[in-house]
Amino acid sequence: MDDITVAVLGTGGIGRRALELSTHKEWLTPVAACDRHGIAVDHEGLDVTELLDATEGNIASRNEQPDDPATDGGIAIKRSGEGEGVAASIQGDHTTTPIDDVIAESELIDAVLMALPNLEHDFIPRVTDQFVDAGYDGVLIDVLKRSRVIGMLDEREDRLVDSGITFVCGAGATPGFLTGGAALAAQSFVDVESVDIRWGVGLKSGYEDNRGTVREDIAHLDEYDIETAREMTDEEIEAVIDDHDGMLEFTDMEHADDVLLERAGICDSDDVSVGGVLDVRNDAKPTTTTVKVTGTTFDGERATNTFQLGDATSMEANVNGPAIGYLKTGVRMNRNGVYGVFGPAELLPGF
Amino acid sequence: MDDITVAVLGTGGIGRRALELSTHKEWLTPVAACDRHGIAVDHEGLDVTELLDATEGNIASRNEQPDDPATDGGIAIKRSGEGEGVAASIQGDHTTTPIDDVIAESELIDAVLMALPNLEHDFIPRVTDQFVDAGYDGVLIDVLKRSRVIGMLDEREDRLVDSGITFVCGAGATPGFLTGGAALAAQSFVDVESVDIRWGVGLKSGYEDNRGTVREDIAHLDEYDIETAREMTDEEIEAVIDDHDGMLEFTDMEHADDVLLERAGICDSDDVSVGGVLDVRNDAKPTTTTVKVTGTTFDGERATNTFQLGDATSMEANVNGPAIGYLKTGVRMNRNGVYGVFGPAELLPGF
Repeated sequence: MDDITVAVLGTGGIGRRALELSTHKEWLTPVAACDRHGIAVDHEGLDVTELLDATEGNIASRNEQPDDPATDGGIAIKRSGEGEGVAASIQGDHTTTPIDDVIAESELIDAVLMALPNLEHDFIPRVTDQFVDAGYDGVLIDVLKRSRVIGMLDEREDRLVDSGITFVCGAGATPGFLTGGAALAAQSFVDVESVDIRWGVGLKSGYEDNRGTVREDIAHLDEYDIETAREMTDEEIEAVIDDHDGMLEFTDMEHADDVLLERAGICDSDDVSVGGVLDVRNDAKPTTTTVKVTGTTFDGERATNTFQLGDATSMEANVNGPAIGYLKTGVRMNRNGVYGVFGPAELLPGF
Repeated sequence: MDDITVAVLGTGGIGRRALELSTHKEWLTPVAACDRHGIAVDHEGLDVTELLDATEGNIASRNEQPDDPATDGGIAIKRSGEGEGVAASIQGDHTTTPIDDVIAESELIDAVLMALPNLEHDFIPRVTDQFVDAGYDGVLIDVLKRSRVIGMLDEREDRLVDSGITFVCGAGATPGFLTGGAALAAQSFVDVESVDIRWGVGLKSGYEDNRGTVREDIAHLDEYDIETAREMTDEEIEAVIDDHDGMLEFTDMEHADDVLLERAGICDSDDVSVGGVLDVRNDAKPTTTTVKVTGTTFDGERATNTFQLGDATSMEANVNGPAIGYLKTGVRMNRNGVYGVFGPAELLPGF
């Protein structure tokens, strides 16, 4: 497979880890990165170590203005130095239009990883529109979680196809890694009756670097929704955590796993349940991340296949490895002329 | 996705189950099937129920002549009726050249499932040559197990590409399903140190219908090799089973999982171990089929991810579901102009 050049939008926890992971993969060259403050571009390949060092010191997510096309997900801000965030890197320049600036360079970029949280439902769809309007013809990939965003991307299917874009959505840990596991595990069965996804995240496993994600998670708690979670201050977020003694348990989350598995023909979205436990005070995962697929074989037996992640694997490892794996598949599809919107499970062999 | 037409070579356990499974999938239409005795072709779609009924009554594998291009894998023979095997079906005709006869129809066939055991190493490669010589330009897929056959197919890579053939090899349960699970599970890790595949098969789970496969398995026992296993009579096979009290345990098998995972860039072939336990006297699986992938994450943690099949899933379900899943992916690749030899793990997103 040929080399792949990638731009990373957002240098929060996910974006930073994607950049770091790229140093482990010779075939993957990050050529652009941006946050709300700046952009760094080098078509020969960014100096990732310098960029990460210069932008070290994560600040938790700010209150967002809904119409602000920010690119942070837990913003990486360097307090010292001449600029903030990416602009603090010697490779970076200050900008007020980071996404437009990436788009201006996109003819040489094979794939764009949108490492953006999506507190505003339409944020990723709107960024997508910007790429379409500019005639981009590569891969867009996001790690979104919310079911309803998929529909908004589907509405753009025709325009994406016309532009020559292959969009892989929800390609992080869940959905993404775990829906992939479910799709594969489903191959024993002619009829899948349930997919049960339950994740565990501990402090060491990723909370500290992923406060933006935690805000999204809080929106899943019974008493909250996206709007209230978005408006909360960091202090209010901390107070919610205190109220739960640091252990947040989620059931029946609105997680895109359901619609993505239905799209892939694995089962009805109603048959998918997603929940998890987040422990923000202990290193150990409070529960082992597990996918259970229960179904009936062609010869009439009912059974459950299981896909389970080792407790020592961090959230970052389980988000970013699969994201880059799906990105690679997306680029292969794009180079073969396959365009449109795809969920991760659709990229797996589908029985 | 558009519909797929398939030919099934061999109507032993695997071939019969593939035909049966096709009735669960609207998009998959079997249009040809053959065994050493006959061929049935209907480009509108075979009547699978009639064909299976007419050929019911499996006979275990015969001693093969190495140069005999037989198409049986545990041959399905009907003892009553005018013909044997496929020729006994009202859709079937007697033939002495079943593979040539399928090739003659292959312009309208999207994919060919080679449900053939491979006691002679070069049998599947030789059948492949026949398809290449005839200018076939669709998908060939097999469920072979032996590492060395992959090399023989690789030698044919250029000719396959020139012909426009997409060859997916080793697409059954193991390799195939389990290497797919390993490839997916590996995505947490930047360095995979080991892939440990251990399968369990009980009587109910598939032995009865898969005696040809058992013969191949016996070749993996310490005291045997391919040549001696091939020459054994059914009675001698039974004697081996008796000697082991019906429970055959295999370690360090020469299973294509190793080379297929290396091809996909998951790990070195030396890091893959394959073993299993076959109980030919009890219904229950003697051990739960499990894939363990141990590696190191980018952030330095060592962990093991696990993919496990429910004990009630039969060998047939775990061979044929994935085989058809990989077939579907192979056809998609073929239609996109992607030709050559691919292992199942290469069809998964590869981080």
